[in-house]
Amino acid sequence: MYRDHNNSELNISSLNKKVTLSGWVQKIRDKGFIIWVDLRDRYGITQLVFDSERTSTAVIEQARELGREFVIQVEGQVLERESKNKHMSTGDIEVLVEKLTVLNASEIPPFTIEDKTDGGEDLRMKYRYLDIRRNPVKNKLIFRSKVSMAVRNYLSQQDFVEVETPYLIKSTPEGARDFVVPSRMNAGQFYALPQSPQTFKQLLMVGGLDKYFQIVKCFRDEDLRADRQPEFTQIDCEMTFVEQEDILNTFEGLTKHLLKEINNVEVKAFPRMTYDEAMKTYGNDKPDIRFGMKFGELNSVAQHKDFKVFNEAELVVGIAVPGAASYSRKEIDKLIDWVKRPQVGAKGMVYVKYNEDGTLKSSVDKFYDEADLKAWVEQTHAQPGDLICVLSGDANTTRGQLSALRMEMGNRLGLRKPNEFAPLWVIDFPLLEWDEDTKRYHAMHHPFTSPKAGQIPLLATDPGAVKANAYDLVLNGNEIGGGSIRIHDQKTQALMFDYLGFSKEEAEAQFGFLMKAFTYGAPPHGGIAFGLDRLVAILGGQESIRDFIAFPKNNSGRDIMIDAPAPIDEEQLKELDLKLRS
Amino acid sequence: MYRDHNNSELNISSLNKKVTLSGWVQKIRDKGFIIWVDLRDRYGITQLVFDSERTSTAVIEQARELGREFVIQVEGQVLERESKNKHMSTGDIEVLVEKLTVLNASEIPPFTIEDKTDGGEDLRMKYRYLDIRRNPVKNKLIFRSKVSMAVRNYLSQQDFVEVETPYLIKSTPEGARDFVVPSRMNAGQFYALPQSPQTFKQLLMVGGLDKYFQIVKCFRDEDLRADRQPEFTQIDCEMTFVEQEDILNTFEGLTKHLLKEINNVEVKAFPRMTYDEAMKTYGNDKPDIRFGMKFGELNSVAQHKDFKVFNEAELVVGIAVPGAASYSRKEIDKLIDWVKRPQVGAKGMVYVKYNEDGTLKSSVDKFYDEADLKAWVEQTHAQPGDLICVLSGDANTTRGQLSALRMEMGNRLGLRKPNEFAPLWVIDFPLLEWDEDTKRYHAMHHPFTSPKAGQIPLLATDPGAVKANAYDLVLNGNEIGGGSIRIHDQKTQALMFDYLGFSKEEAEAQFGFLMKAFTYGAPPHGGIAFGLDRLVAILGGQESIRDFIAFPKNNSGRDIMIDAPAPIDEEQLKELDLKLRS
Repeated sequence: MYRDHNNSELNISSLNKKVTLSGWVQKIRDKGFIIWVDLRDRYGITQLVFDSERTSTAVIEQARELGREFVIQVEGQVLERESKNKHMSTGDIEVLVEKLTVLNASEIPPFTIEDKTDGGEDLRMKYRYLDIRRNPVKNKLIFRSKVSMAVRNYLSQQDFVEVETPYLIKSTPEGARDFVVPSRMNAGQFYALPQSPQTFKQLLMVGGLDKYFQIVKCFRDEDLRADRQPEFTQIDCEMTFVEQEDILNTFEGLTKHLLKEINNVEVKAFPRMTYDEAMKTYGNDKPDIRFGMKFGELNSVAQHKDFKVFNEAELVVGIAVPGAASYSRKEIDKLIDWVKRPQVGAKGMVYVKYNEDGTLKSSVDKFYDEADLKAWVEQTHAQPGDLICVLSGDANTTRGQLSALRMEMGNRLGLRKPNEFAPLWVIDFPLLEWDEDTKRYHAMHHPFTSPKAGQIPLLATDPGAVKANAYDLVLNGNEIGGGSIRIHDQKTQALMFDYLGFSKEEAEAQFGFLMKAFTYGAPPHGGIAFGLDRLVAILGGQESIRDFIAFPKNNSGRDIMIDAPAPIDEEQLKELDLKLRS
Repeated sequence: MYRDHNNSELNISSLNKKVTLSGWVQKIRDKGFIIWVDLRDRYGITQLVFDSERTSTAVIEQARELGREFVIQVEGQVLERESKNKHMSTGDIEVLVEKLTVLNASEIPPFTIEDKTDGGEDLRMKYRYLDIRRNPVKNKLIFRSKVSMAVRNYLSQQDFVEVETPYLIKSTPEGARDFVVPSRMNAGQFYALPQSPQTFKQLLMVGGLDKYFQIVKCFRDEDLRADRQPEFTQIDCEMTFVEQEDILNTFEGLTKHLLKEINNVEVKAFPRMTYDEAMKTYGNDKPDIRFGMKFGELNSVAQHKDFKVFNEAELVVGIAVPGAASYSRKEIDKLIDWVKRPQVGAKGMVYVKYNEDGTLKSSVDKFYDEADLKAWVEQTHAQPGDLICVLSGDANTTRGQLSALRMEMGNRLGLRKPNEFAPLWVIDFPLLEWDEDTKRYHAMHHPFTSPKAGQIPLLATDPGAVKANAYDLVLNGNEIGGGSIRIHDQKTQALMFDYLGFSKEEAEAQFGFLMKAFTYGAPPHGGIAFGLDRLVAILGGQESIRDFIAFPKNNSGRDIMIDAPAPIDEEQLKELDLKLRS
């Protein structure tokens, strides 16, 4: 037996007990006649004491050999501390060591195992097993486990069945790129790893399982952006005999439960906003509504004057940044540089200082008089002291740019508070979106999403205007879940594939099994999928998902700890009937 | 709203209620003036009634158009049935339909959606979504979900943290064949899908997580035997600061909990048996101890007579088959044919009838007199009425053959009762096993398993005799879990790789990260992994795992429903820098 207590358990009630503890050496303070060692494990820290008056010389000698991160076992007696530490569960006691066993020595770790470490990102990833010893990482992994259990318990209590769907499935060219897996037993053929269990969960509904969920890994072979992983985890859900309203209520329930259970936050009914409204008001289909700075459209008040830039723009739109009227010329120039960065891409920015004294000063005073600017103030709901920032151009692009500026100012002004939670549903998404590259419409959600009742004829005349029974759950400026009511009849599904540019043969080859299934009494159904990595990060008050993943990959999709991917043997390639090209 | 009740909820307390129900048409009985329809969903069946005296003609006409597996929605009133059905929760009532909506029609399904179907295995797999509508399959999937939740809740309550380990890892030639995943972003390089999260869970222990579990898919590219799947699910567990005893106690606790919670069976302390004893007594390291027929070794009493076959054998060993002395000559000949089948491979079988009257009659009366045979009776613990079956030859082979016979007789005699549960621990496994193909020793469990204390020197002199801190949990003749205490110091691990024939370079390239981790204060640790598919099947009283998997693959590793694996585009291959050889 290596221990009879962990390192958070002993306290004043344990006085004089003989105990056995195990753990890592966190810290050593050697005062000559007395040595203190902080012994750490997952649960906490217990202070050990080696006292030349009370501990045998041999044990003291042993203690002098210890180094940081040595793994040791000690036997000793629980004593009351002279100087107590109220911040630790074990802060009232210390253990006077009688016997010390070194279970494993340690080399000096490449970075300090402290809450604030001196290790950079790359070093921490290479030695991830040491990084996990640090409280900030360890606690995030435990937090994730807790969130997963809360999800599972809630959904199970609501009669959802967790079903494991297969990982070795079939590649479909639609959507993002699949990771593929060559089959040795079926030479020249490949499995694909699922981007989501979409078709399988729909088949489970055809199969009458009624309520399904799964916490499941999904895979996408995309060029990675920061904070995107090639493998990620979804909470995948599907229900039968439901309309959109049923889904929204069920998963609003789940989200409220998590906020209560995990964050002890009570949230009232989630607001609902149409996609069009979200785009118009926040320039973004996942608005952070913890703060204002709603968009004010200025076309009617800023166009048809002499300012050519605005007159030629499809959209002139501004936000009032609270308290920023006091920005210096230099600060404003910096802000203009910021919106002109390639990541944002604005050509310039017009501004109006709405000073505390009610006066107005703009960068376009040449073209607009006070009355004009007063109208801008009204449109943007600016208050004295605010800085009105105005962008213009093509409507979609400009909205995106102003949204980026709004989020940036939200961050700079501390309006995006990690412990405040503002969920909302964004509904009535367009069914299709135009793709400039391929010059055709793509499914905005996926090809299984049903159009709103009665809108199928519109597909022929104005496809971009067709709305879908699709919805996103947005939390603090992040899409944490998205789903739709699915098509459940074979004819509509075939029609949809046709509109999306699939030939009959392609549709049959890729999704024939699903359309066949729809001819055998497929029920109405719909669902949602949550991104667990993101959800956990946001509930944990963070924006970055990486530390909520035990062994994440870097931006080249590499695991630098185990050094994967890696070349494989020629023999292995041969068995798979494969050759490298280069 | 598609329904306000499911099809198991209405009963006598719901009388006269107006209700809305949805579901599938299970059965239609048309008596002309009255039509009964059984409406089915996941939860049960509700009887609908269309009565020409009380239902509108239009609705009756509609009802006449219904077919099996149509999806319908009805509104109606709950009435008391005339002839009640005590076997159904809704057996006291029926719903008089006022409004009928066909939500989706159905073609005639390729097999009947009944508990006993007319569909063969292949047809059922191709239309798995219809198969899942059948109670036996549906209930097994729900049962699996329930077992998984019970596992998770138990382990979470014991402070285990569920951590998701990566699916895209590195290929290692040790062990079974990996499935590999070509990396597009790292041309010419491959990920592998994990055969188990072994090294990652060990790194989590090095990382101080203390108690880890995960219910996780694993992958093995093996030539499939019946009831083996290329992807399978493990309950993977690891603990820190533990000895074998701690692991056995913890997971005996889990198993007892499952038997109680799932099967309502209380099991006392699990027996423990060494590997050597299991092999000697049952010829098998996963003995089914629900029944006797223990091996009786006969070398001392059957050799050194004139029977050459036995004299030349390394081992002569028999079992007493209860009540089989009455077998006819023909039946015994059939049994001899059975042991001579290539799957068993015995050259022949000697038998002794120990008749009810105490007389003995054997197939080798020429060589053995009654006193000789009495000794056989004693060794095999035969009772009057038993048939003693004796095999001989090389010890290992003969034990395997006799074990096959023992299991077969257990099945034939109904001794392997699905609702009886007899778990046991098999311990003290050999560390290594000799492989005839490669002419060297392989790790019996895996290369991370620690040898018993003090046995490392034996590796040099008698490697096959070294015992490991390895254990299997056996239930009803199946290994449901296996694990070991791991090596946790770098030197022993390097030594082990050396003994297993790894060059220093190979060991470094494949497991360098683990050995490096061992130099930074790796704690003593150990664990276990359960095969969830098998565990669930056994708790469900079945031997075959296939129906406990939602979408299993066939024996060629194919999913015949979605038709995977399949060829991929030349374009996709090019992106992966790959070419087919043939």
